[in-house]
Amino acid sequence: MLSPLTRQLIEALTCLQGIGPKSAQRLAFQLLADKSRSKGLALSQALLAAMEQVGHCTHCGIYTEQTVCELCENPKRDARLLCVVESPADVAAIEQTSHYQGRYYVLQGHLSPLDGKGPEEIGIPYLLERLRQEPIQEVILATNSTMEGEATAHYIATHMDRTRIRCSRIAHGVPIGGELEYLDGGTLAHALHSRIVLAT
Amino acid sequence: MLSPLTRQLIEALTCLQGIGPKSAQRLAFQLLADKSRSKGLALSQALLAAMEQVGHCTHCGIYTEQTVCELCENPKRDARLLCVVESPADVAAIEQTSHYQGRYYVLQGHLSPLDGKGPEEIGIPYLLERLRQEPIQEVILATNSTMEGEATAHYIATHMDRTRIRCSRIAHGVPIGGELEYLDGGTLAHALHSRIVLAT
Repeated sequence: MLSPLTRQLIEALTCLQGIGPKSAQRLAFQLLADKSRSKGLALSQALLAAMEQVGHCTHCGIYTEQTVCELCENPKRDARLLCVVESPADVAAIEQTSHYQGRYYVLQGHLSPLDGKGPEEIGIPYLLERLRQEPIQEVILATNSTMEGEATAHYIATHMDRTRIRCSRIAHGVPIGGELEYLDGGTLAHALHSRIVLAT
Repeated sequence: MLSPLTRQLIEALTCLQGIGPKSAQRLAFQLLADKSRSKGLALSQALLAAMEQVGHCTHCGIYTEQTVCELCENPKRDARLLCVVESPADVAAIEQTSHYQGRYYVLQGHLSPLDGKGPEEIGIPYLLERLRQEPIQEVILATNSTMEGEATAHYIATHMDRTRIRCSRIAHGVPIGGELEYLDGGTLAHALHSRIVLAT
């Protein structure tokens, strides 16, 4: 016997990934508790502000409420390096390593002809345009290691031929700390094939 | 390199139970994706409406945006039965069984003298008042089976003495479908002690 607004809140919460009807009800009751009301209100306002104001950086495509993002405007970032990824979440993952000081270009996903997503739809022409106009010396292709990600990387690599810019792909192999015994065959085969010579 | 509004959204999302910083970031990126914007806006509005408008039923204490809830006003519910629980979530749990047709009284938690929560703070005087004024024939104490829940049930039972209303406590024992082997000792001891005679 839940009130209409409570039911509406529960249903709205199920839009969150990994939150089913049971968890949504638990969260709704948690937020409705007297001591959580202010947090619930703050969440509602943060959501509204983010949904209405956060867009894509016109230059690199990451989420920002400005026209051009802080990262693109930061003179300390190396303008000669450009890392190409599939989504803003990938930028966050790379930034968290703090091992990359270049700039980014975020595609709108990956090539997927069956879904009608060709090079134009995911923003490859603008990427090639940037390569022609900016003093970029190396493009690091960091699309996912899936079929579509590989196809997208391959497409960009072949279309960069004329630019004479160095093009690299992030390494694939055994994860650091990973045990061979538990690794899938595909990764292990790739790691063997792409072995690096230490001494001859 | 997240924008201020994105960071704010991620931090606000961590107020949800079971959502840590990693999950919050994943959810924020999910909501910021172009196809999820409308769902994020809907969630923000549902949250705002619920936080601002949902209060407690003045009669039984469950969450509602009306003064008196649908359940209290429903003439089909048996006014002779009153089930006492610790929180609105407990009402939802009992309602989902659809095995109870009476009414409810929601305490504001349980007795907890160390936290300064005495009988007045959790609404016991108003409950006793209702028992005197309404045609209630049985009070079912459905507080949790914790130390505090038991103490609260005990307190209500002893203070109901003079009203001559039947007072019962929900049964405790082996969960239906439960295997003895995996049950904790306390529950098993209780189940043995509270055994029901089938034949003599």
